[in-house]
Amino acid sequence: MKFCPQCGNKTVSLIPEGDNRVRDVCDSCDLIHYQNPRIIAGCIPVWEDKVLLCQRAIHPQKGFWTLPAGFMELAETTEQAAIRETLEEAEALVQTEELYAVFNLPHINQVYMMYRSVLLKPEFSSGIESLDVRLFAEHEIPWGDLAFETMRLSLEYYFQDRKAGTFKFRSTDINKPLLQ
Amino acid sequence: MKFCPQCGNKTVSLIPEGDNRVRDVCDSCDLIHYQNPRIIAGCIPVWEDKVLLCQRAIHPQKGFWTLPAGFMELAETTEQAAIRETLEEAEALVQTEELYAVFNLPHINQVYMMYRSVLLKPEFSSGIESLDVRLFAEHEIPWGDLAFETMRLSLEYYFQDRKAGTFKFRSTDINKPLLQ
Repeated sequence: MKFCPQCGNKTVSLIPEGDNRVRDVCDSCDLIHYQNPRIIAGCIPVWEDKVLLCQRAIHPQKGFWTLPAGFMELAETTEQAAIRETLEEAEALVQTEELYAVFNLPHINQVYMMYRSVLLKPEFSSGIESLDVRLFAEHEIPWGDLAFETMRLSLEYYFQDRKAGTFKFRSTDINKPLLQ
Repeated sequence: MKFCPQCGNKTVSLIPEGDNRVRDVCDSCDLIHYQNPRIIAGCIPVWEDKVLLCQRAIHPQKGFWTLPAGFMELAETTEQAAIRETLEEAEALVQTEELYAVFNLPHINQVYMMYRSVLLKPEFSSGIESLDVRLFAEHEIPWGDLAFETMRLSLEYYFQDRKAGTFKFRSTDINKPLLQ
C-alpha cells in the first residue's frame, strides 16, 4: 500500500503506538490500514461414489484439476461461499453436510475451509472459470494433475475416511505446498 | 474505499467484466480492490477445572469478559494467532489441543476460530488490552457480563461437552448476536 484509500495521501510503514507490527499508516489522516489473511471456501461435491472436479480455465494452475473453491465474499458465511463457488465454477447445486477440512497456508496468507457436500442432482457444466467439469470415481482421480496441495489432501482425507466408514474433521498446516 | 492504495487516484464502484459484484476499481490503473471477511482466532484456555477469561480494557464491550481472541495477522496460522492473542491479552502460555468451534458472523464480516487449549502453568496477568484476567470455575462464569455471543457459545459448548465426556467440533452461524 502506497496511498491512503480514505484520503488519497501517502502512507508510511511504521509500528503504531501500542502495536507490535509494522502497518501502513496514513501520513495525513492517521488511519491504520490492517491487512489480514483471506478465506477460500470450497466443496467436496459427491454424487453416488464419485467426486466432482473442475479443470481450471484461469491462472494460477490453468488446465489442472481442482475441487470448486474460491475467495469468501463480504456478507456471506463460509458455507454460503462454498455453495456459491460450486454453483459458479461447476454450475452444480449442492447441499453441504459438514465443515470437513481447514488448511492454513501462512506463506500465502490463506485459510481454506472445505465442506463435504452432496450434489442435489447429477447436473453440472463448466462455469466461466472452468474448462471442464467431471465426476471421478476414486481410481479415476487425476492425482498427477491436481492444481493445489489443499485439493490433493482434501481428496485423500475423503477417500481414506470413506473407506474407514467415518468422517473426521481435519485441520492441517501447509507451509510449503508440493504442488503450486 | 475512495482512493487507489497503489496509485493514489480515485476509485469507482462498478462490476468488473466477468464478475458479478460491485468492487472498488481504480479509474487510472484499473486495479480491482477486493474486500474479504476477517478471521478472529482465540483460545479456551483451561487450567484444571477452570477457564481463563479477560476483562476488556478497550472498546467494543469495554469492561465485559471474553476469551482471549483477536484478528489473525499475515504470515501466521490460525493456531499461531490464537496462541499469540492469549499471550498478548492474558500474558499466558498455552498449548492448543484442537480447533473446537468456528463461528460465522456475516453481518460484520467475521469468522471466529476457537481452539481448546491448556495453560502450561497457572501464570497470567493483564495484557495491555485487558483490565483483569482470572480463572473461573463453571459456576463462577460471569454469564451476564460476557462481551460477545461467540464467547458465550464457546463456553456453553465447552462445559456441555466436558460434562458429556467428549468434545465435538462445532460450526455455528450467528446472524444477529444477542450480546453486542
